[in-house]
Amino acid sequence: MTKIPQRTVERFFRYCQFLHNRLEAGSDHVFSHELASAVGVSPEQVRRDLMNFDLKGTPQRGYPIKEFLAELYSHLESSALTKMVLVGVGNLGKAILSYFLKRRPNLSIVAAFDQDPEKINRVYSGCQVHHIGQLEKTVSREKAAVGIITVPASSAQEAADILVRAGVRGLINFAPVQIKVPAGIFLEQIDITLSIEKVSYFARKSRLKEKVK
Amino acid sequence: MTKIPQRTVERFFRYCQFLHNRLEAGSDHVFSHELASAVGVSPEQVRRDLMNFDLKGTPQRGYPIKEFLAELYSHLESSALTKMVLVGVGNLGKAILSYFLKRRPNLSIVAAFDQDPEKINRVYSGCQVHHIGQLEKTVSREKAAVGIITVPASSAQEAADILVRAGVRGLINFAPVQIKVPAGIFLEQIDITLSIEKVSYFARKSRLKEKVK
Repeated sequence: MTKIPQRTVERFFRYCQFLHNRLEAGSDHVFSHELASAVGVSPEQVRRDLMNFDLKGTPQRGYPIKEFLAELYSHLESSALTKMVLVGVGNLGKAILSYFLKRRPNLSIVAAFDQDPEKINRVYSGCQVHHIGQLEKTVSREKAAVGIITVPASSAQEAADILVRAGVRGLINFAPVQIKVPAGIFLEQIDITLSIEKVSYFARKSRLKEKVK
Repeated sequence: MTKIPQRTVERFFRYCQFLHNRLEAGSDHVFSHELASAVGVSPEQVRRDLMNFDLKGTPQRGYPIKEFLAELYSHLESSALTKMVLVGVGNLGKAILSYFLKRRPNLSIVAAFDQDPEKINRVYSGCQVHHIGQLEKTVSREKAAVGIITVPASSAQEAADILVRAGVRGLINFAPVQIKVPAGIFLEQIDITLSIEKVSYFARKSRLKEKVK
């Protein structure tokens, strides 16, 4: 099995995302220069990528979107189902559950976990909420590969430790705290407030500059 | 006014985040090596940063957290209030509104916007929801500097265009689509689904590798 570099994987997923949006908007073909411009990569890069694909386009209509997606997914080997679990069913957790409902058939959130008795056994976007005490057992039994952490900062490391012990290979942490995982576990930290603070900083700078002018 | 490089700004905000977490957990002092390890930077880097700060620590207790935060914020010049608006009051929008309520006194979401009649005039986490048609006028009047976009992909570019026309200097886009802004506008795109897909890809790879062993 060839290993695709991380940057290529990310670019391919961006292609997929743009193509999904185009399909939803009613298009069935796309030109490579549209893709390049929308995704923010050079037309040369898109052409190089296309050379490795078994995909035929025409100068009049461009490339057929459905075939293009199938080709991308076969390279990403993501036709296989990946099972995920989500820990922390607050607003952010619910937003993620509702997004994945039916939109990505190959990615399935098989269970959600919380400690709030009012949420346990309820179903959000087709996904049942279990007590956090069931986390380790459920992940092992379902062989879930990915854990999504949407708990407060104070519980994030504990959730990560349980998920790793239960056998997940990848984690996405949304809690505003840096968590630690053993080598070999793929970790992505998405810090929403940090990003908002950073943008605010640069927006403030740019406003001040304008006032001075 | 000195301009701090983007990486330093990000690192300083990570320091702030860790220090806030420590304060909330009841500590009032911190050692530089704890900070380095928690934030994932080298102890040398932390010591270099500390040399520029007007802050005294002791070998027994480390640095006083409140003074450390004040020093960081003075370097980030973020004692001034930054006004933000949020467009799209779905689950993700609500999650962001509730997070910012009172936690960051210098960052205030002054208004939220949606097109759903059921949400208009309601108040979420202290923030009133207005009809999207009021967006441009409100941003201009309030002199909001930052726009947070939490609408679906199909409306994200339109929301961005209105926000830029109304005078924001920074945008954070959560919609799963690449948006375009004029030069001089600071844009951060946070694509939650893309990140989850990427982690799933690498988790799958790592599981397969294990099976082969």
